[in-house]
Amino acid sequence: MKIAILGYGTIGSGVFEIFEQNAAGIRKKAGEDIDVKYVLDLRDFPGEPVEKKLVHDFRIIADDAEVSCVVETMGGVEPAYSFVKELLLRGKSVCTSNKELVAKHGAELLEIARQKKENFFFEASVGGAIPVIRPINESFSADEIVEICGIVNGTTNYILTKMCDDGEDFATALAEAQEKGYAERNPSADVEGHDACRKIAILASLACGSHVNYEKIYTEGITKLTTVDLGYARKLGKSIKLIAQMRKENESVFATVSPMLVGTGSPLFAVNGVYNGILVKGRFSGQIMFYGSGAGKLPTAAAVSADVVECARNQGKNEPVFWSGKELQLTDRMEEVNDFFVRVNAADADKIREVFDKITEVAPAEGEFAFTVKNISERDFIEKLKSIKIINRIRILNV
Amino acid sequence: MKIAILGYGTIGSGVFEIFEQNAAGIRKKAGEDIDVKYVLDLRDFPGEPVEKKLVHDFRIIADDAEVSCVVETMGGVEPAYSFVKELLLRGKSVCTSNKELVAKHGAELLEIARQKKENFFFEASVGGAIPVIRPINESFSADEIVEICGIVNGTTNYILTKMCDDGEDFATALAEAQEKGYAERNPSADVEGHDACRKIAILASLACGSHVNYEKIYTEGITKLTTVDLGYARKLGKSIKLIAQMRKENESVFATVSPMLVGTGSPLFAVNGVYNGILVKGRFSGQIMFYGSGAGKLPTAAAVSADVVECARNQGKNEPVFWSGKELQLTDRMEEVNDFFVRVNAADADKIREVFDKITEVAPAEGEFAFTVKNISERDFIEKLKSIKIINRIRILNV
Repeated sequence: MKIAILGYGTIGSGVFEIFEQNAAGIRKKAGEDIDVKYVLDLRDFPGEPVEKKLVHDFRIIADDAEVSCVVETMGGVEPAYSFVKELLLRGKSVCTSNKELVAKHGAELLEIARQKKENFFFEASVGGAIPVIRPINESFSADEIVEICGIVNGTTNYILTKMCDDGEDFATALAEAQEKGYAERNPSADVEGHDACRKIAILASLACGSHVNYEKIYTEGITKLTTVDLGYARKLGKSIKLIAQMRKENESVFATVSPMLVGTGSPLFAVNGVYNGILVKGRFSGQIMFYGSGAGKLPTAAAVSADVVECARNQGKNEPVFWSGKELQLTDRMEEVNDFFVRVNAADADKIREVFDKITEVAPAEGEFAFTVKNISERDFIEKLKSIKIINRIRILNV
Repeated sequence: MKIAILGYGTIGSGVFEIFEQNAAGIRKKAGEDIDVKYVLDLRDFPGEPVEKKLVHDFRIIADDAEVSCVVETMGGVEPAYSFVKELLLRGKSVCTSNKELVAKHGAELLEIARQKKENFFFEASVGGAIPVIRPINESFSADEIVEICGIVNGTTNYILTKMCDDGEDFATALAEAQEKGYAERNPSADVEGHDACRKIAILASLACGSHVNYEKIYTEGITKLTTVDLGYARKLGKSIKLIAQMRKENESVFATVSPMLVGTGSPLFAVNGVYNGILVKGRFSGQIMFYGSGAGKLPTAAAVSADVVECARNQGKNEPVFWSGKELQLTDRMEEVNDFFVRVNAADADKIREVFDKITEVAPAEGEFAFTVKNISERDFIEKLKSIKIINRIRILNV
């Protein structure tokens, strides 16, 4: 089988490296040789092994009937979307690590793949090397997924781990993450939760079988968290994680990205640094967690490369992936019920005690009043606190 | 598709229940209705929904050409092996939760399935509901698995968690596990490590692509652990887990089941109670952990049922599973290098200091001398301690 790689950046060069270094292992698993015939990139890489495979014109790849599977590792929606769509329409399978592309156009691209009896695989788009897309598709096929709850962004998890363990403030932890290459120069996609939002949209779409629009997912980042919040977390014996969540409750489906307090009883508690952990709860299977490197060149490339092997094993046969284009109506998030931890000014303590039937007070920082309250909807929470200035409030995870 | 279930015990009845309760969901994922046509059991279950499907004669199932997939949940090697072999030879796919059967005859049964273009699936044989067999087969297909390290027996993990957290001794914790139904009346398969041994044999066979004979795996149970050992573990900031391990090192392959000290930095540290956690390390993917309920009626049944759905999706097509009948030669375990924690009598302290170049002393229990030693082969360890009475020694996990 001949393949092409679109984009010779971090992931694309990792895929190239794996197919060079593990050709024999891959041949055994795929049942045939898999050769990288082209690598598309705007740049030249003189003297490097990739040099002789490099092309600058997408048409060479699209027009070459010998190429039956293409790896897309360019990132971003365009031109990735136009390229991938054309490749599928021309009868080539595509494997991608591109979460923006999958979150936005996954349902349509899967439908084209289905019609053309090709495959559109995207294991690496969520959780890097962690197998989670394929298990959701295949291993829960007799079950019903009722909840997904994950730490799916390594950058924010690294920052929060630093804030929690070393008492660093947000700016310092972010600067350190940038220095180590874990965070981009412009970190907003990560720290504002947009990256996590796209990933939970993908997982929720697969778990529910219909399209979850990422633009409709309530998304809160970690930029407002302070060392004081982390201090409270420690007092409560919890840590704070950026949690991307999908929950089914009776006929309701909620999807949210927000920082949450996570207790030691949760398997997510011990997911630290740049690691990811994704907890999937099935009606029959109970809680299953998938844990590992959520990013990084070779781990992510290994996941894309395994998708390519699956394409080789399934030539001319579309592997079913349940994600219809029909948009799933998320339930009004005002109905979503959570436990909350809340900080207000000390002067408002009596007002708080008045509006809530039952709260648990937490030893406060100076000048503050702090408490937790259980089982309250977003609507009631806002309503009860509308005349009180909230310093910060953090939802509490109960899984 | 018509299926049959062999054995209406805990798992078999769970499979029956899932196909009753989730028929619509399963139809959607399988692409067709899946009906349970027969359930084989020696018993009658008058008045229960299963009653009208019950048969007592295996031949009825074997001879019915309409049955294209059979679930084997009887357990034990015979008659399961004879039944499964005949069914595969007669062109039916088989899904099983039976680790004894798979560990002993997996390679042969997979070969028959391959020849007959049927499937022999066994996701539930290791880790209950946790997807680990299929990820090893499919998600690491471009990678090379260099290590598997797992807590794969919920009974022993429950006992060790009780001993560690509540300071209970082995006998008390075991009695409690038996009372809760987590341990059998005769617990030796679990507490002596035989169950974990079969499971790591299955995982190692899949990871290496050739048969790992479970009888050749060094297996040590948890019966010799005392509250004193657990006390030392706490002092060292570690817990003790029964670890089933496969490690590749250059040309060597080691496989071992033994209690090990696990540090807080390991994702396995937080795997408590009846949960299982299986850590798979890939050359490119790094560490991936799979975590969840390792046993239980519905979780295990959900895994078997998902295998049935895969059979429905792949009728007439054998899904490749790499496990040849050629026996893998495990490296002499005397070559295996580990870190050790060791307890000897206080009187032997000087002898210890003499025979080892470098040890780290641990605050001892009364009358004892305790230490850890790094990077020592089993052979050297035995050689150095041959003239000293060891009270206990526990290997230390470094992942």
